[in-house]
Amino acid sequence: MTEAKAPDSSRRSERSRRAIYDAALALVGEAGYGRTTIEGIASRAGVGKQTIYRWWPSKAAVLMEAFLDLAEQAAAEAGADGAAEYAIPDTGDLRTDLRRVLRATVDEMNSPAYDAPARALAAEGVLDAELGAQFVEKLLEPQLQLYVDRLRAAEAAGQVRTGLDARIALELFVGPLTHRWLLRTLPLTHAYADTVVDYAVDGLAPRP
Amino acid sequence: MTEAKAPDSSRRSERSRRAIYDAALALVGEAGYGRTTIEGIASRAGVGKQTIYRWWPSKAAVLMEAFLDLAEQAAAEAGADGAAEYAIPDTGDLRTDLRRVLRATVDEMNSPAYDAPARALAAEGVLDAELGAQFVEKLLEPQLQLYVDRLRAAEAAGQVRTGLDARIALELFVGPLTHRWLLRTLPLTHAYADTVVDYAVDGLAPRP
Repeated sequence: MTEAKAPDSSRRSERSRRAIYDAALALVGEAGYGRTTIEGIASRAGVGKQTIYRWWPSKAAVLMEAFLDLAEQAAAEAGADGAAEYAIPDTGDLRTDLRRVLRATVDEMNSPAYDAPARALAAEGVLDAELGAQFVEKLLEPQLQLYVDRLRAAEAAGQVRTGLDARIALELFVGPLTHRWLLRTLPLTHAYADTVVDYAVDGLAPRP
Repeated sequence: MTEAKAPDSSRRSERSRRAIYDAALALVGEAGYGRTTIEGIASRAGVGKQTIYRWWPSKAAVLMEAFLDLAEQAAAEAGADGAAEYAIPDTGDLRTDLRRVLRATVDEMNSPAYDAPARALAAEGVLDAELGAQFVEKLLEPQLQLYVDRLRAAEAAGQVRTGLDARIALELFVGPLTHRWLLRTLPLTHAYADTVVDYAVDGLAPRP
């Protein structure tokens, strides 16, 4: 939308958009994906359902954007900003940077505001291949790509083995956390995240 | 049941039990956990529903046992037998043994007979904490314990670092495979399993 708008109208739109995101995330967390409807989101957000249909083609599209927004807010809270908003920090020390990211991921997974809707959407994607593919393409892979970028920088700096398959290597970090989160096997703690980072970073170290 | 039975009766029972397992797994894979009922399982298995109620207290209990049976069959097909039926092989070479196990896991995840019911049960456990806890306690943790045992043997043999937290370390193997399987990010192949094993085993190596 390049069209100029009066400030009041923009503020109203922004307020509606945020109310819709909040309503969509709350409903999917409480009622599940299947029982969440555009009508329900509109009612909870205090907007007309035509407002939602004007901006999004489907329930899935609203939820994807609501999650993207949630991720942006989480990144903003973590102190990131500007162009590198989503990047994994690069202090030159891979272990330190990944500990920070995995600890933040643990905090997110332990937060009810994230857990309930993310769990509902993930479970739906496990069953529904089409929704799962959208979830992976729009939400998950862009996040995983940040690990690829950070691991490639580490390779350039000689901190991981040459020729590392970064797309597989990143799964040694996100796989364990996701396994523990989705299947609820054992508590997700910072100490756990640190141990995963230690073992996995050692596994990627340059070969003698 | 220590009571002696006529061979014919035992054979009939065994046949019914297998028919019930098969029906339960097929139904949950086709219709989902929520729409699978004891009545539906009985009808598909060609038994009276009282037969099912006599042996199992709930739908969840039938499914848990059906999965345990599936795992036993998979282990039998993989050539295991006797007391070590479920153990991870110990040839003395951790990398070789884990490659074998992770390749077999990839094959299982790619098999429709396993994928459909396991996916349906996993998704249900993601949402329903109580069912998830049963799934973890009865099915998942006993399998994960086999990795703990194998990693402890490797520690005793000096092949992994002293004081390794085996319960966390195993997640570097099963976490990535489960992530790729449940979220359907990228293909599950033997080459992928081998790379996961290479990176993770290196990460657990003895410290200088």
